[in-house]
Amino acid sequence: MPQLSENTFLMPASPIRKLVPYANEAKAKGKKVYHLNIGQPDIAMPKEVIEAFNKLELQNISYAPSDGYQSYKDKIVTYYASHKILISSSDVLVTTGGSEALEFTFLTCFNPGDELIIPEPFYANYLGFAAATGVKIKPIISTLDSGFALPAMQDFERLITPYTKGIMICNPNNPTGYLYSKEEIKQLGKLAKKHDLFLIADEVYREFCYDGHEHYSLLNLPDMEENVIVVDSVSKRYSLCGARVGALVSKNTDVIEQGLKYAQARLSPPTLGQIAAEAAMDCGDEYFENVKAEYVKRRDLVVKRLNEMKGVKCPTPKGAFYTVAQLPIDNADNFCQWLLSDFSLNDETVMFAPAAGFYSNLISGQKQIRIAYVLNLDDLNKALDCLDEALKVYPNRID
Amino acid sequence: MPQLSENTFLMPASPIRKLVPYANEAKAKGKKVYHLNIGQPDIAMPKEVIEAFNKLELQNISYAPSDGYQSYKDKIVTYYASHKILISSSDVLVTTGGSEALEFTFLTCFNPGDELIIPEPFYANYLGFAAATGVKIKPIISTLDSGFALPAMQDFERLITPYTKGIMICNPNNPTGYLYSKEEIKQLGKLAKKHDLFLIADEVYREFCYDGHEHYSLLNLPDMEENVIVVDSVSKRYSLCGARVGALVSKNTDVIEQGLKYAQARLSPPTLGQIAAEAAMDCGDEYFENVKAEYVKRRDLVVKRLNEMKGVKCPTPKGAFYTVAQLPIDNADNFCQWLLSDFSLNDETVMFAPAAGFYSNLISGQKQIRIAYVLNLDDLNKALDCLDEALKVYPNRID
Repeated sequence: MPQLSENTFLMPASPIRKLVPYANEAKAKGKKVYHLNIGQPDIAMPKEVIEAFNKLELQNISYAPSDGYQSYKDKIVTYYASHKILISSSDVLVTTGGSEALEFTFLTCFNPGDELIIPEPFYANYLGFAAATGVKIKPIISTLDSGFALPAMQDFERLITPYTKGIMICNPNNPTGYLYSKEEIKQLGKLAKKHDLFLIADEVYREFCYDGHEHYSLLNLPDMEENVIVVDSVSKRYSLCGARVGALVSKNTDVIEQGLKYAQARLSPPTLGQIAAEAAMDCGDEYFENVKAEYVKRRDLVVKRLNEMKGVKCPTPKGAFYTVAQLPIDNADNFCQWLLSDFSLNDETVMFAPAAGFYSNLISGQKQIRIAYVLNLDDLNKALDCLDEALKVYPNRID
Repeated sequence: MPQLSENTFLMPASPIRKLVPYANEAKAKGKKVYHLNIGQPDIAMPKEVIEAFNKLELQNISYAPSDGYQSYKDKIVTYYASHKILISSSDVLVTTGGSEALEFTFLTCFNPGDELIIPEPFYANYLGFAAATGVKIKPIISTLDSGFALPAMQDFERLITPYTKGIMICNPNNPTGYLYSKEEIKQLGKLAKKHDLFLIADEVYREFCYDGHEHYSLLNLPDMEENVIVVDSVSKRYSLCGARVGALVSKNTDVIEQGLKYAQARLSPPTLGQIAAEAAMDCGDEYFENVKAEYVKRRDLVVKRLNEMKGVKCPTPKGAFYTVAQLPIDNADNFCQWLLSDFSLNDETVMFAPAAGFYSNLISGQKQIRIAYVLNLDDLNKALDCLDEALKVYPNRID
């Protein structure tokens, strides 16, 4: 039999892949499982989406232009302007989800072996795209005790080598919920400029900023047009995860022009997804106000209850809909599996993502879990009841 | 400014990219342009698709499983069975178009530097995916004079080196319309087995076989489960090009299992596209009978009229909706550009894809064009009127 590529063995499996069979088994046994393990929001999408499909008239679903429909790109420009970010439609490549924007960024900017610095914990799939394109991720630790703030600039400087080609952040952050301040972004900008690096931000959670804090986009850094690339997506913004519509945004015309070649090779971003995204963008500001108010309530509940549990530590994130908590346990992989296979409270249990999958080593996140607060308050309360009780009876509890 | 990757300069631009500005300019001047340059069928999709969307009820568009909806995979199994191909749903990874199935195949099977033999002319985007993944395509020439039949086995043998890892065909073929016979497929199977190679077929035009000829799938080769990978897509089958739904099909469980890692990294194939594809699969056999009857009429018209033109040679393809013709001209790139910028007949002109983009060198296809017969008979006739007249007055005609 012919051998598979070496690359397949470098590709990480999904952080929750090992847990899925246990979740399925729990459900087969009649246990209810609360899924706080994945960023699949339960929030309803704008009503404009379903209205658009219910009156859709088309003879066939044809290819969109490789860089996306002009009408959709125009709407993106207007949307950015409403966030005080000035771009033109030629700065935008519409992609198949934020995932493809990441892939195109890596392929366009990095040679195999080039190094990309990312604060960790980081979104696990960055490792997948890096492995597929031969990019080396150089992690820089951010700590739970600092609330996962940006590491000091001298720590970044220490990691920079002749192979360093870029720095990437996710803002607000998945998995930590950390919102980088304008001051932090400016420091990063100065550093990237000094070392002539690409500066990349995954800004798919841009709307989800709380407590009056404002998001500061990389695209607003002055004099950084050549360095900055923003990865965007409608997945979380409008609860359109399955639409698979994202964007690569850059004022570096070479990045857009060369990135277009990868876009042309795969022909077209999804036509139906763009129809959904265009319709969603007609929702008013009210939509986001309601969504944000809901997430703040959820975050407050989750953080308060977690910190009330003995031995649990959890910072109060200012953005996204995730938080990382430290538990009084030996190993979160084992604990999360045990929650599914051995534990129940009133025939219910809860599934989390062990944080180890968001770190480049097995140690740093060993006692941590990521919690996605994507369920309603009632369900969140019940899920946290499970966690509370589970921590009391877990045989490998450590204090 | 940071440098882009070396890879971006290896990526080929689309074969018609240079022509697009000329087409736009022609249209701006009020010229009507018949587009025979792209495989975007004008045929209506099954009515079931629009019905599904018009009655769609969803709270949000959520992620599909990374390997596709089970309900859709089950339908794929039934569809294959109706083509006398027996697979199980675990042999299927649902992908974002056939494009992503190709990308996953390359990433899963080939190391950078591995060689893949493909009869040329071949679908231009194979070069793009090869460049993005570091795979070396070794072309093997098929000639217009033979109707683009499979090259002799000793010609394949001559190309096999220690780096050869696979052979790929497109059946029926884009750009030539050639339908490989069962005998030819069996020869390829024997060769791949002998040298322990992956044998890959792009079978997205499976339905489009004419004159009573039957398609023979790689998946029906006996004793080749470990070697065979099929790339599939609903794009052409149901006129759902923009749905972006394809599949990687293989009975090699390692290929599916490792390929799933790439699928997980990009999270989900398009949810809306899968809804469209599932609905389309409810169309009866009648749908394809009508579509095929229409394409046969178009092909017959195109081939007859082309061969009636002095100095033009065109085989009669048995499948897909393309044909490659040789013209009495110096250079098809220049000719196609001239058609757009300098020629018109009753304020109309026609756009073709110069065939050079489907070859790995600039010489073999220099006098050839690919014609996609994706317009109705009236428009095809007018487009061919343009070509007929253009060849009479083209200043660089060669006889």
